[in-house]
Amino acid sequence: MIQDKMRAQQARVESVLTQLLSQQGEQSALLHQSMRYSALDGGKRARPLLVYATGEAVGVAEDILDIIAAAIELIHVYSLIHDDLPAMDDDDLRRGKPSNHKAFDEATAILAGDALQAMAFNLLATAPQLSVTADIRLKLIAELSHAAGAFGMVGGQAIDLESVNKTLGLSELENMHRCKTGALIRASVLMPAYCSAQITDKQINDLAHFADCIGLAFQVQDDILDIESDTETLGKPQGADVAANKPTYPSIIGLQASKQKLAGLHEEAIASLESFGDSVQSLQELAGFIVNRIK
Amino acid sequence: MIQDKMRAQQARVESVLTQLLSQQGEQSALLHQSMRYSALDGGKRARPLLVYATGEAVGVAEDILDIIAAAIELIHVYSLIHDDLPAMDDDDLRRGKPSNHKAFDEATAILAGDALQAMAFNLLATAPQLSVTADIRLKLIAELSHAAGAFGMVGGQAIDLESVNKTLGLSELENMHRCKTGALIRASVLMPAYCSAQITDKQINDLAHFADCIGLAFQVQDDILDIESDTETLGKPQGADVAANKPTYPSIIGLQASKQKLAGLHEEAIASLESFGDSVQSLQELAGFIVNRIK
Repeated sequence: MIQDKMRAQQARVESVLTQLLSQQGEQSALLHQSMRYSALDGGKRARPLLVYATGEAVGVAEDILDIIAAAIELIHVYSLIHDDLPAMDDDDLRRGKPSNHKAFDEATAILAGDALQAMAFNLLATAPQLSVTADIRLKLIAELSHAAGAFGMVGGQAIDLESVNKTLGLSELENMHRCKTGALIRASVLMPAYCSAQITDKQINDLAHFADCIGLAFQVQDDILDIESDTETLGKPQGADVAANKPTYPSIIGLQASKQKLAGLHEEAIASLESFGDSVQSLQELAGFIVNRIK
Repeated sequence: MIQDKMRAQQARVESVLTQLLSQQGEQSALLHQSMRYSALDGGKRARPLLVYATGEAVGVAEDILDIIAAAIELIHVYSLIHDDLPAMDDDDLRRGKPSNHKAFDEATAILAGDALQAMAFNLLATAPQLSVTADIRLKLIAELSHAAGAFGMVGGQAIDLESVNKTLGLSELENMHRCKTGALIRASVLMPAYCSAQITDKQINDLAHFADCIGLAFQVQDDILDIESDTETLGKPQGADVAANKPTYPSIIGLQASKQKLAGLHEEAIASLESFGDSVQSLQELAGFIVNRIK
Protein backbone atom coordinates (compact mmCIF):
# COMPACT_ATOMS: atom_id res chain seq x y z
CA MET A 1 0.00 0.00 0.00
CA ILE A 2 1.37 3.39 -1.01
CA GLN A 3 -0.16 4.99 2.13
CA ASP A 4 1.73 2.58 4.40
CA LYS A 5 4.96 3.22 2.56
CA MET A 6 4.44 6.97 2.80
CA ARG A 7 3.73 6.75 6.52
CA ALA A 8 6.89 4.70 7.01
CA GLN A 9 8.95 7.26 5.09
CA GLN A 10 7.40 10.16 6.99
CA ALA A 11 8.38 8.34 10.19
CA ARG A 12 11.93 7.82 8.84
CA VAL A 13 12.53 11.50 8.15
CA GLU A 14 10.91 12.45 11.48
CA SER A 15 13.33 10.14 13.23
CA VAL A 16 16.37 11.53 11.37
CA LEU A 17 15.31 15.11 12.24
CA THR A 18 14.61 14.14 15.87
CA GLN A 19 18.09 12.66 16.15
CA LEU A 20 19.65 15.75 14.54
CA LEU A 21 17.81 18.13 16.85
CA SER A 22 18.37 16.13 20.03
CA GLN A 23 21.56 17.89 21.11
CA GLN A 24 21.13 21.19 22.88
CA GLY A 25 24.70 21.58 24.07
CA GLU A 26 25.50 25.05 25.36
CA GLN A 27 23.07 26.72 22.99
CA SER A 28 20.01 28.72 24.00
CA ALA A 29 17.20 26.47 25.27
CA LEU A 30 14.61 28.74 23.65
CA LEU A 31 16.30 28.56 20.23
CA HIS A 32 16.57 24.80 20.50
CA GLN A 33 12.87 24.43 21.43
CA SER A 34 11.86 26.75 18.63
CA MET A 35 13.83 24.75 16.04
CA ARG A 36 12.29 21.50 17.30
CA TYR A 37 8.78 22.99 17.44
CA SER A 38 8.71 23.65 13.71
CA ALA A 39 10.94 20.87 12.41
CA LEU A 40 9.37 17.99 14.35
CA ASP A 41 5.68 18.67 13.99
CA GLY A 42 4.97 16.09 11.35
CA GLY A 43 3.60 17.89 8.34
CA LYS A 44 3.02 16.30 4.95
CA ARG A 45 6.76 15.85 4.30
CA ALA A 46 6.01 16.10 0.57
CA ARG A 47 9.64 16.82 -0.36
CA PRO A 48 11.10 13.91 1.64
CA LEU A 49 8.49 11.60 0.05
CA LEU A 50 9.70 12.76 -3.36
CA VAL A 51 13.28 12.06 -2.32
CA TYR A 52 12.44 8.48 -1.28
CA ALA A 53 10.32 7.83 -4.37
CA THR A 54 13.04 9.14 -6.69
CA GLY A 55 15.66 7.15 -4.84
CA GLU A 56 13.55 4.02 -5.36
CA ALA A 57 13.26 4.86 -9.08
CA VAL A 58 17.01 5.24 -9.61
CA GLY A 59 18.35 2.76 -7.07
CA VAL A 60 19.82 4.76 -4.20
CA ALA A 61 20.17 3.38 -0.64
CA GLU A 62 17.74 4.63 2.00
CA ASP A 63 20.54 5.73 4.37
CA ILE A 64 21.64 8.22 1.73
CA LEU A 65 18.07 9.32 1.05
CA ASP A 66 17.48 9.94 4.77
CA ILE A 67 20.13 12.67 4.82
CA ILE A 68 19.00 14.29 1.58
CA ALA A 69 15.37 14.24 2.74
CA ALA A 70 16.29 15.77 6.11
CA ALA A 71 18.45 18.51 4.57
CA ILE A 72 15.71 19.56 2.15
CA GLU A 73 13.06 19.47 4.88
CA LEU A 74 15.23 21.68 7.11
CA ILE A 75 15.32 24.29 4.34
CA HIS A 76 11.58 23.96 3.80
CA VAL A 77 10.81 24.30 7.50
CA TYR A 78 13.03 27.37 7.87
CA SER A 79 11.23 29.00 4.94
CA LEU A 80 7.83 28.35 6.52
CA ILE A 81 8.97 29.97 9.78
CA HIS A 82 10.23 33.07 7.97
CA ASP A 83 7.27 33.27 5.57
CA ASP A 84 4.82 33.27 8.49
CA LEU A 85 6.46 36.31 10.15
CA PRO A 86 4.36 39.49 10.53
CA ALA A 87 6.60 41.35 8.08
CA MET A 88 6.01 38.61 5.49
CA ASP A 89 2.75 36.65 5.12
CA ASP A 90 1.72 37.34 8.75
CA ASP A 91 0.18 33.90 9.35
CA ASP A 92 -0.77 32.96 12.91
CA LEU A 93 -1.52 29.32 12.06
CA ARG A 94 0.69 26.67 10.49
CA ARG A 95 -0.18 22.98 10.23
CA GLY A 96 -3.06 23.55 12.64
CA LYS A 97 -1.02 25.06 15.47
CA PRO A 98 0.36 28.52 16.24
CA SER A 99 3.10 29.54 13.84
CA ASN A 100 6.61 29.70 15.28
CA HIS A 101 6.65 33.42 16.11
CA LYS A 102 3.28 33.07 17.89
CA ALA A 103 4.45 30.09 19.94
CA PHE A 104 7.80 31.80 20.69
CA ASP A 105 8.59 35.36 19.58
CA GLU A 106 9.67 37.03 16.36
CA ALA A 107 13.37 37.22 17.19
CA THR A 108 13.50 33.54 18.13
CA ALA A 109 11.59 32.61 14.96
CA ILE A 110 14.03 34.54 12.75
CA LEU A 111 17.00 32.89 14.48
CA ALA A 112 15.48 29.39 14.40
CA GLY A 113 15.02 29.74 10.64
CA ASP A 114 18.59 30.97 10.21
CA ALA A 115 19.98 28.10 12.27
CA LEU A 116 17.93 25.46 10.41
CA GLN A 117 19.32 26.73 7.10
CA ALA A 118 22.92 26.43 8.33
CA MET A 119 22.14 22.97 9.71
CA ALA A 120 20.96 21.73 6.31
CA PHE A 121 24.32 22.49 4.70
CA ASN A 122 26.27 21.21 7.68
CA LEU A 123 24.37 17.94 7.40
CA LEU A 124 25.19 17.47 3.72
CA ALA A 125 28.85 18.31 4.35
CA THR A 126 29.35 16.03 7.36
CA ALA A 127 26.74 13.26 7.82
CA PRO A 128 28.59 9.90 7.79
CA GLN A 129 25.47 8.03 6.54
CA LEU A 130 25.70 9.99 3.31
CA SER A 131 28.00 7.41 1.72
CA VAL A 132 28.73 9.17 -1.57
CA THR A 133 31.93 10.68 -2.96
CA ALA A 134 33.04 14.16 -1.89
CA ASP A 135 32.29 15.37 -5.43
CA ILE A 136 28.69 14.20 -5.16
CA ARG A 137 28.31 15.79 -1.73
CA LEU A 138 29.42 19.08 -3.29
CA LYS A 139 26.93 18.63 -6.12
CA LEU A 140 24.17 18.13 -3.52
CA ILE A 141 25.23 21.25 -1.61
CA ALA A 142 25.43 23.23 -4.86
CA GLU A 143 21.93 22.13 -5.89
CA LEU A 144 20.32 22.79 -2.52
CA SER A 145 22.00 26.17 -1.98
CA HIS A 146 20.99 27.28 -5.47
CA ALA A 147 17.41 26.06 -4.99
CA ALA A 148 17.18 27.77 -1.58
CA GLY A 149 18.69 31.13 -2.54
CA ALA A 150 18.04 34.29 -4.55
CA PHE A 151 17.56 32.38 -7.80
CA GLY A 152 15.23 29.86 -6.16
CA MET A 153 13.02 29.79 -3.07
CA VAL A 154 13.99 33.12 -1.48
CA GLY A 155 13.87 34.90 -4.85
CA GLY A 156 10.39 33.49 -5.45
CA GLN A 157 9.16 34.66 -2.05
CA ALA A 158 10.49 38.15 -2.85
CA ILE A 159 8.57 38.19 -6.15
CA ASP A 160 5.50 36.91 -4.30
CA LEU A 161 5.63 39.77 -1.77
CA GLU A 162 6.06 42.32 -4.54
CA SER A 163 3.07 40.87 -6.40
CA VAL A 164 0.45 41.66 -3.77
CA ASN A 165 -2.14 44.04 -5.25
CA LYS A 166 -0.47 43.74 -8.66
CA THR A 167 -1.83 42.18 -11.82
CA LEU A 168 0.51 39.39 -12.88
CA GLY A 169 0.47 37.63 -16.22
CA LEU A 170 0.45 33.83 -16.28
CA SER A 171 4.13 33.63 -17.23
CA GLU A 172 5.10 35.96 -14.36
CA LEU A 173 3.02 33.86 -11.97
CA GLU A 174 4.70 30.69 -13.19
CA ASN A 175 8.19 32.22 -12.90
CA MET A 176 7.34 33.13 -9.31
CA HIS A 177 6.19 29.59 -8.48
CA ARG A 178 9.11 27.98 -10.34
CA CYS A 179 11.36 29.87 -7.93
CA LYS A 180 9.30 29.89 -4.74
CA THR A 181 8.25 26.24 -4.53
CA GLY A 182 9.43 24.66 -7.80
CA ALA A 183 13.17 24.96 -7.13
CA LEU A 184 13.05 22.94 -3.91
CA ILE A 185 10.76 20.30 -5.44
CA ARG A 186 13.20 20.02 -8.35
CA ALA A 187 16.05 19.59 -5.84
CA SER A 188 14.04 16.84 -4.10
CA VAL A 189 14.11 14.86 -7.35
CA LEU A 190 17.55 15.84 -8.68
CA MET A 191 19.51 15.34 -5.46
CA PRO A 192 18.75 11.60 -5.14
CA ALA A 193 19.25 11.24 -8.90
CA TYR A 194 22.78 12.68 -8.57
CA CYS A 195 23.59 9.86 -6.13
CA SER A 196 22.73 7.12 -8.62
CA ALA A 197 25.75 5.50 -10.25
CA GLN A 198 23.97 4.41 -13.43
CA ILE A 199 21.84 7.47 -14.19
CA THR A 200 21.99 8.97 -17.72
CA ASP A 201 21.70 12.64 -18.73
CA LYS A 202 18.39 11.88 -20.44
CA GLN A 203 17.02 10.37 -17.24
CA ILE A 204 18.13 13.44 -15.27
CA ASN A 205 16.29 15.65 -17.78
CA ASP A 206 13.17 13.49 -17.64
CA LEU A 207 13.16 13.59 -13.85
CA ALA A 208 13.71 17.36 -13.88
CA HIS A 209 10.73 17.76 -16.19
CA PHE A 210 8.63 15.52 -13.97
CA ALA A 211 9.61 17.67 -10.98
CA ASP A 212 8.79 20.91 -12.78
CA CYS A 213 5.33 19.62 -13.72
CA ILE A 214 4.40 18.38 -10.25
CA GLY A 215 5.93 21.51 -8.70
CA LEU A 216 3.55 23.69 -10.66
CA ALA A 217 0.71 21.20 -10.12
CA PHE A 218 1.30 21.43 -6.37
CA GLN A 219 0.90 25.21 -6.59
CA VAL A 220 -2.19 25.13 -8.82
CA GLN A 221 -3.81 22.71 -6.36
CA ASP A 222 -2.78 25.01 -3.47
CA ASP A 223 -4.55 27.92 -5.15
CA ILE A 224 -7.65 25.79 -5.78
CA LEU A 225 -7.70 24.57 -2.16
CA ASP A 226 -7.47 28.18 -0.93
CA ILE A 227 -10.87 28.66 -2.59
CA GLU A 228 -12.54 25.27 -2.18
CA SER A 229 -11.32 23.89 1.15
CA ASP A 230 -11.86 25.10 4.72
CA THR A 231 -9.59 26.31 7.52
CA GLU A 232 -9.97 23.19 9.64
CA THR A 233 -8.98 20.82 6.84
CA LEU A 234 -6.12 23.05 5.63
CA GLY A 235 -4.66 23.74 9.08
CA LYS A 236 -4.18 27.34 7.88
CA PRO A 237 -6.73 30.08 7.13
CA GLN A 238 -8.84 29.27 4.06
CA GLY A 239 -9.19 32.18 1.64
CA ALA A 240 -5.94 33.80 2.85
CA ASP A 241 -4.60 34.33 -0.68
CA VAL A 242 -7.83 35.88 -1.89
CA ALA A 243 -8.04 38.06 1.26
CA ALA A 244 -4.44 39.23 0.72
CA ASN A 245 -5.28 40.00 -2.91
CA LYS A 246 -2.51 37.68 -4.11
CA PRO A 247 -2.34 36.63 -7.76
CA THR A 248 -3.31 32.95 -8.10
CA TYR A 249 -4.11 30.60 -10.98
CA PRO A 250 -7.87 30.96 -10.38
CA SER A 251 -7.57 34.76 -10.20
CA ILE A 252 -5.74 34.88 -13.56
CA ILE A 253 -7.26 32.06 -15.61
CA GLY A 254 -10.37 31.17 -13.58
CA LEU A 255 -11.19 28.16 -11.40
CA GLN A 256 -12.30 25.84 -14.21
CA ALA A 257 -9.23 26.48 -16.38
CA SER A 258 -7.06 26.00 -13.25
CA LYS A 259 -8.52 22.52 -12.80
CA GLN A 260 -7.81 21.71 -16.44
CA LYS A 261 -4.27 23.06 -16.04
CA LEU A 262 -3.81 20.78 -13.03
CA ALA A 263 -4.96 17.73 -14.99
CA GLY A 264 -2.67 18.65 -17.91
CA LEU A 265 0.38 19.02 -15.67
CA HIS A 266 -0.39 15.67 -14.03
CA GLU A 267 -0.55 13.96 -17.43
CA GLU A 268 2.71 15.59 -18.57
CA ALA A 269 4.44 14.56 -15.34
CA ILE A 270 3.43 10.93 -15.79
CA ALA A 271 4.47 10.98 -19.46
CA SER A 272 7.97 12.17 -18.60
CA LEU A 273 8.56 8.99 -16.55
CA GLU A 274 7.78 6.69 -19.50
CA SER A 275 11.32 5.43 -20.12
CA PHE A 276 11.90 4.31 -16.52
CA GLY A 277 9.76 1.16 -16.37
CA ASP A 278 8.31 -0.24 -13.15
CA SER A 279 10.68 1.46 -10.70
CA VAL A 280 8.77 4.75 -10.90
CA GLN A 281 5.53 3.42 -9.40
CA SER A 282 5.98 5.41 -6.17
CA LEU A 283 6.74 8.59 -8.11
CA GLN A 284 3.57 8.11 -10.18
CA GLU A 285 1.46 7.52 -7.10
CA LEU A 286 2.99 10.55 -5.39
CA ALA A 287 2.10 12.72 -8.39
CA GLY A 288 -1.47 11.49 -8.00
CA PHE A 289 -1.46 12.39 -4.32
CA ILE A 290 -0.25 15.92 -5.02
CA VAL A 291 -2.95 16.49 -7.61
CA ASN A 292 -5.74 14.97 -5.51
CA ARG A 293 -4.70 16.14 -2.04
CA ILE A 294 -7.30 17.94 0.04
CA LYS A 295 -4.94 19.92 2.31
CA MET B 1 52.74 49.45 5.00
CA ILE B 2 50.14 47.31 6.73
CA GLN B 3 47.45 49.96 6.04
CA ASP B 4 48.13 49.81 2.30
CA LYS B 5 47.98 46.03 2.32
CA MET B 6 44.74 46.09 4.29
CA ARG B 7 43.19 48.57 1.87
CA ALA B 8 44.25 46.39 -1.07
CA GLN B 9 42.69 43.32 0.56
CA GLN B 10 39.50 45.21 1.39
CA ALA B 11 39.33 46.19 -2.28
CA ARG B 12 39.91 42.56 -3.31
CA VAL B 13 37.00 41.21 -1.29
CA GLU B 14 34.79 44.13 -2.38
CA SER B 15 35.56 43.21 -5.99
CA VAL B 16 34.80 39.50 -5.46
CA LEU B 17 31.49 40.36 -3.78
CA THR B 18 30.63 42.89 -6.52
CA GLN B 19 31.23 40.24 -9.16
CA LEU B 20 29.15 37.69 -7.24
CA LEU B 21 26.25 40.09 -6.82
CA SER B 22 26.31 41.47 -10.35
CA GLN B 23 23.80 39.02 -11.81
CA GLN B 24 20.17 39.84 -11.22
CA GLY B 25 18.72 37.30 -13.63
CA GLU B 26 14.99 36.79 -13.25
CA GLN B 27 15.08 37.46 -9.54
CA SER B 28 13.34 40.32 -7.75
CA ALA B 29 15.05 43.68 -8.38
CA LEU B 30 14.30 44.78 -4.83
CA LEU B 31 15.88 41.67 -3.30
CA HIS B 32 18.94 42.08 -5.50
CA GLN B 33 19.35 45.76 -4.53
CA SER B 34 18.89 44.92 -0.88
CA MET B 35 21.58 42.21 -0.99
CA ARG B 36 23.97 44.61 -2.75
CA TYR B 37 23.15 47.47 -0.38
CA SER B 38 24.43 45.59 2.66
CA ALA B 39 27.13 43.41 1.10
CA LEU B 40 28.89 46.12 -0.94
CA ASP B 41 29.04 49.00 1.48
CA GLY B 42 32.67 48.66 2.43
CA GLY B 43 32.79 48.08 6.15
CA LYS B 44 35.91 47.11 8.06
CA ARG B 45 36.05 43.65 6.47
CA ALA B 46 37.78 42.41 9.62
CA ARG B 47 37.05 38.73 8.85
CA PRO B 48 38.38 38.88 5.27
CA LEU B 49 41.51 40.63 6.54
CA LEU B 50 42.02 37.75 8.97
CA VAL B 51 41.58 35.28 6.10
CA TYR B 52 44.27 36.99 4.00
CA ALA B 53 46.67 37.38 6.93
CA THR B 54 46.27 33.71 7.91
CA GLY B 55 46.68 32.67 4.29
CA GLU B 56 49.94 34.63 4.18
CA ALA B 57 51.09 32.92 7.38
CA VAL B 58 50.47 29.39 6.12
CA GLY B 59 51.15 29.84 2.39
CA VAL B 60 47.76 29.73 0.63
CA ALA B 61 47.15 31.38 -2.78
CA GLU B 62 45.14 34.63 -2.85
CA ASP B 63 42.63 33.23 -5.38
CA ILE B 64 41.63 30.65 -2.79
CA LEU B 65 41.55 33.22 0.00
CA ASP B 66 39.27 35.49 -2.07
CA ILE B 67 36.52 32.87 -2.06
CA ILE B 68 36.89 32.01 1.62
CA ALA B 69 36.90 35.71 2.54
CA ALA B 70 33.80 36.39 0.44
CA ALA B 71 31.88 33.40 1.84
CA ILE B 72 32.59 34.40 5.44
CA GLU B 73 31.72 38.05 4.74
CA LEU B 74 28.38 37.00 3.18
CA ILE B 75 27.51 35.19 6.41
CA HIS B 76 28.63 38.18 8.49
CA VAL B 77 26.61 40.63 6.38
CA TYR B 78 23.47 38.48 6.55
CA SER B 79 23.79 38.35 10.34
CA LEU B 80 24.09 42.15 10.56
CA ILE B 81 20.92 42.56 8.48
CA HIS B 82 18.94 40.18 10.68
CA ASP B 83 20.43 41.48 13.96
CA ASP B 84 19.34 45.04 13.08
CA LEU B 85 15.67 44.04 12.59
CA PRO B 86 13.07 45.60 14.92
CA ALA B 87 12.35 42.20 16.51
CA MET B 88 16.06 41.79 17.28
CA ASP B 89 18.42 44.68 18.18
CA ASP B 90 16.20 47.27 16.43
CA ASP B 91 19.07 49.36 15.06
CA ASP B 92 18.28 52.07 12.50
CA LEU B 93 21.92 52.77 11.68
CA ARG B 94 24.64 50.47 10.40
CA ARG B 95 28.05 51.58 9.21
CA GLY B 96 26.81 55.18 9.17
CA LYS B 97 23.83 54.62 6.89
CA PRO B 98 20.25 53.36 7.38
CA SER B 99 20.17 49.67 8.25
CA ASN B 100 18.78 47.36 5.56
CA HIS B 101 15.19 47.23 6.80
CA LYS B 102 15.11 51.04 7.01
CA ALA B 103 16.47 51.47 3.48
CA PHE B 104 14.13 48.74 2.15
CA ASP B 105 11.53 47.04 4.33
CA GLU B 106 11.52 44.28 6.92
CA ALA B 107 10.41 41.50 4.61
CA THR B 108 13.07 42.34 2.05
CA ALA B 109 15.71 42.54 4.78
CA ILE B 110 14.78 39.09 6.12
CA LEU B 111 14.90 37.60 2.61
CA ALA B 112 18.16 39.36 1.68
CA GLY B 113 19.78 37.84 4.76
CA ASP B 114 18.40 34.40 3.93
CA ALA B 115 19.65 34.61 0.34
CA LEU B 116 23.12 35.80 1.38
CA GLN B 117 23.46 32.80 3.68
CA ALA B 118 22.57 30.36 0.88
CA MET B 119 24.97 32.19 -1.44
CA ALA B 120 27.89 31.68 0.95
CA PHE B 121 27.52 27.90 0.83
CA ASN B 122 26.87 27.87 -2.91
CA LEU B 123 30.10 29.81 -3.39
CA LEU B 124 32.18 27.34 -1.38
CA ALA B 125 30.60 24.40 -3.22
CA THR B 126 31.00 25.78 -6.75
CA ALA B 127 33.54 28.62 -7.18
CA PRO B 128 36.17 27.47 -9.73
CA GLN B 129 38.85 29.78 -8.24
CA LEU B 130 38.71 27.71 -5.05
CA SER B 131 41.37 25.30 -6.31
CA VAL B 132 41.38 22.81 -3.45
CA THR B 133 40.29 19.16 -3.28
CA ALA B 134 36.63 18.26 -2.88
CA ASP B 135 37.44 16.99 0.62
CA ILE B 136 38.85 20.37 1.63
CA ARG B 137 35.83 22.19 0.16
CA LEU B 138 33.62 20.01 2.35
CA LYS B 139 35.78 20.81 5.38
CA LEU B 140 35.34 24.53 4.62
CA ILE B 141 31.56 24.15 4.29
CA ALA B 142 31.43 22.10 7.49
CA GLU B 143 33.42 24.73 9.40
CA LEU B 144 31.41 27.70 8.11
CA SER B 145 28.00 26.08 8.57
CA HIS B 146 28.92 25.07 12.11
CA ALA B 147 30.27 28.54 12.93
CA ALA B 148 27.15 30.18 11.47
CA GLY B 149 24.51 27.95 13.07
CA ALA B 150 22.90 27.09 16.39
CA PHE B 151 26.22 26.14 18.01
CA GLY B 152 27.91 29.30 16.72
CA MET B 153 26.79 32.74 15.58
CA VAL B 154 23.00 32.24 15.61
CA GLY B 155 23.14 30.43 18.95
CA GLY B 156 25.17 33.30 20.40
CA GLN B 157 22.69 35.89 19.16
CA ALA B 158 19.89 33.88 20.81
CA ILE B 159 21.76 33.86 24.13
CA ASP B 160 22.41 37.60 23.68
CA LEU B 161 18.71 38.37 23.24
CA GLU B 162 17.82 36.26 26.27
CA SER B 163 20.42 38.09 28.35
CA VAL B 164 18.83 41.55 28.16
CA ASN B 165 17.91 42.70 31.67
CA LYS B 166 19.59 39.62 33.14
CA THR B 167 22.67 39.44 35.30
CA LEU B 168 25.26 37.29 33.52
CA GLY B 169 28.41 35.94 35.05
CA LEU B 170 31.71 36.42 33.23
CA SER B 171 31.78 32.81 31.99
CA GLU B 172 28.24 33.09 30.61
CA LEU B 173 29.16 36.35 28.88
CA GLU B 174 32.23 34.71 27.36
CA ASN B 175 30.26 31.68 26.19
CA MET B 176 27.84 34.05 24.47
CA HIS B 177 30.64 35.93 22.70
CA ARG B 178 32.50 32.73 21.81
CA CYS B 179 29.35 31.74 19.90
CA LYS B 180 28.08 35.08 18.64
CA THR B 181 31.27 36.58 17.20
CA GLY B 182 34.05 34.17 18.17
CA ALA B 183 32.92 31.25 16.01
CA LEU B 184 33.07 33.22 12.75
CA ILE B 185 36.42 34.79 13.67
CA ARG B 186 37.74 31.30 14.41
CA ALA B 187 36.44 30.14 11.01
CA SER B 188 38.24 33.10 9.38
CA VAL B 189 41.53 31.71 10.69
CA LEU B 190 40.83 27.96 10.43
CA MET B 191 39.39 27.93 6.91
CA PRO B 192 42.55 29.25 5.22
CA ALA B 193 44.63 27.01 7.49
CA TYR B 194 42.71 23.94 6.22
CA CYS B 195 43.81 24.85 2.68
CA SER B 196 47.50 24.72 3.52
CA ALA B 197 49.24 21.54 2.40
CA GLN B 198 52.01 21.61 5.01
CA ILE B 199 50.07 22.65 8.12
CA THR B 200 50.48 20.60 11.31
CA ASP B 201 47.89 19.84 14.00
CA LYS B 202 49.89 21.93 16.47
CA GLN B 203 49.81 24.89 14.11
CA ILE B 204 46.06 24.51 13.68
CA ASN B 205 45.67 24.53 17.48
CA ASP B 206 47.93 27.58 17.84
CA LEU B 207 45.96 29.47 15.18
CA ALA B 208 42.66 28.47 16.80
CA HIS B 209 43.91 29.81 20.14
CA PHE B 210 45.06 33.03 18.46
CA ALA B 211 41.59 33.39 16.90
CA ASP B 212 39.81 32.75 20.20
CA CYS B 213 41.90 35.42 21.94
CA ILE B 214 41.40 38.10 19.30
CA GLY B 215 37.72 37.15 18.97
CA LEU B 216 37.17 37.91 22.64
CA ALA B 217 39.47 40.96 22.42
CA PHE B 218 37.33 42.28 19.56
CA GLN B 219 34.26 42.02 21.79
CA VAL B 220 35.89 43.55 24.86
CA GLN B 221 37.00 46.49 22.70
CA ASP B 222 33.45 46.74 21.27
CA ASP B 223 32.06 47.02 24.78
CA ILE B 224 34.65 49.65 25.72
CA LEU B 225 33.91 51.66 22.55
CA ASP B 226 30.19 51.59 23.34
CA ILE B 227 31.08 53.61 26.46
CA GLU B 228 34.06 55.70 25.32
CA SER B 229 33.41 56.48 21.62
CA ASP B 230 30.69 58.59 19.94
CA THR B 231 27.92 57.84 17.44
CA GLU B 232 29.61 59.65 14.55
CA THR B 233 32.88 57.72 14.90
CA LEU B 234 31.14 54.37 15.46
CA GLY B 235 28.61 54.72 12.62
CA LYS B 236 26.06 53.25 15.04
CA PRO B 237 24.47 54.68 18.19
CA GLN B 238 27.01 55.08 21.01
CA GLY B 239 25.73 53.78 24.36
CA ALA B 240 23.28 51.37 22.70
CA ASP B 241 24.37 48.41 24.83
CA VAL B 242 24.11 50.36 28.06
CA ALA B 243 20.73 51.80 26.99
CA ALA B 244 19.45 48.30 26.18
CA ASN B 245 20.70 47.09 29.56
CA LYS B 246 22.86 44.44 27.89
CA PRO B 247 25.54 42.64 29.89
CA THR B 248 29.01 43.81 28.79
CA TYR B 249 32.56 43.39 30.08
CA PRO B 250 32.52 46.87 31.69
CA SER B 251 29.12 46.17 33.29
CA ILE B 252 30.39 42.93 34.84
CA ILE B 253 34.05 43.59 35.67
CA GLY B 254 34.28 47.39 35.30
CA LEU B 255 35.93 49.58 32.66
CA GLN B 256 39.46 49.45 34.06
CA ALA B 257 39.51 45.66 34.40
CA SER B 258 38.07 45.41 30.86
CA LYS B 259 41.04 47.35 29.53
CA GLN B 260 43.42 45.03 31.40
CA LYS B 261 41.55 42.03 30.04
CA LEU B 262 41.94 43.43 26.52
CA ALA B 263 45.70 43.84 26.98
CA GLY B 264 46.01 40.31 28.39
CA LEU B 265 44.12 38.77 25.47
CA HIS B 266 46.31 40.70 23.02
CA GLU B 267 49.46 39.38 24.69
CA GLU B 268 48.13 35.80 24.70
CA ALA B 269 47.17 36.06 21.02
CA ILE B 270 50.67 37.21 20.02
CA ALA B 271 52.28 34.49 22.17
CA SER B 272 50.29 31.75 20.42
CA LEU B 273 51.93 32.68 17.10
CA GLU B 274 55.46 32.20 18.46
CA SER B 275 56.33 29.04 16.53
CA PHE B 276 55.42 30.46 13.11
CA GLY B 277 58.37 32.80 12.50
CA ASP B 278 58.21 35.83 10.21
CA SER B 279 55.19 34.79 8.13
CA VAL B 280 52.75 35.89 10.85
CA GLN B 281 53.65 39.58 10.72
CA SER B 282 50.29 40.53 9.17
CA LEU B 283 48.38 38.48 11.75
CA GLN B 284 50.30 40.23 14.56
CA GLU B 285 49.58 43.65 13.10
CA LEU B 286 45.92 42.78 12.62
CA ALA B 287 45.67 41.75 16.27
CA GLY B 288 47.08 45.18 17.15
CA PHE B 289 44.49 46.87 14.96
CA ILE B 290 41.62 45.02 16.63
CA VAL B 291 42.82 45.96 20.08
CA ASN B 292 43.52 49.60 19.21
CA ARG B 293 40.63 50.28 16.80
CA ILE B 294 38.49 53.31 17.50
CA LYS B 295 35.31 52.14 15.71
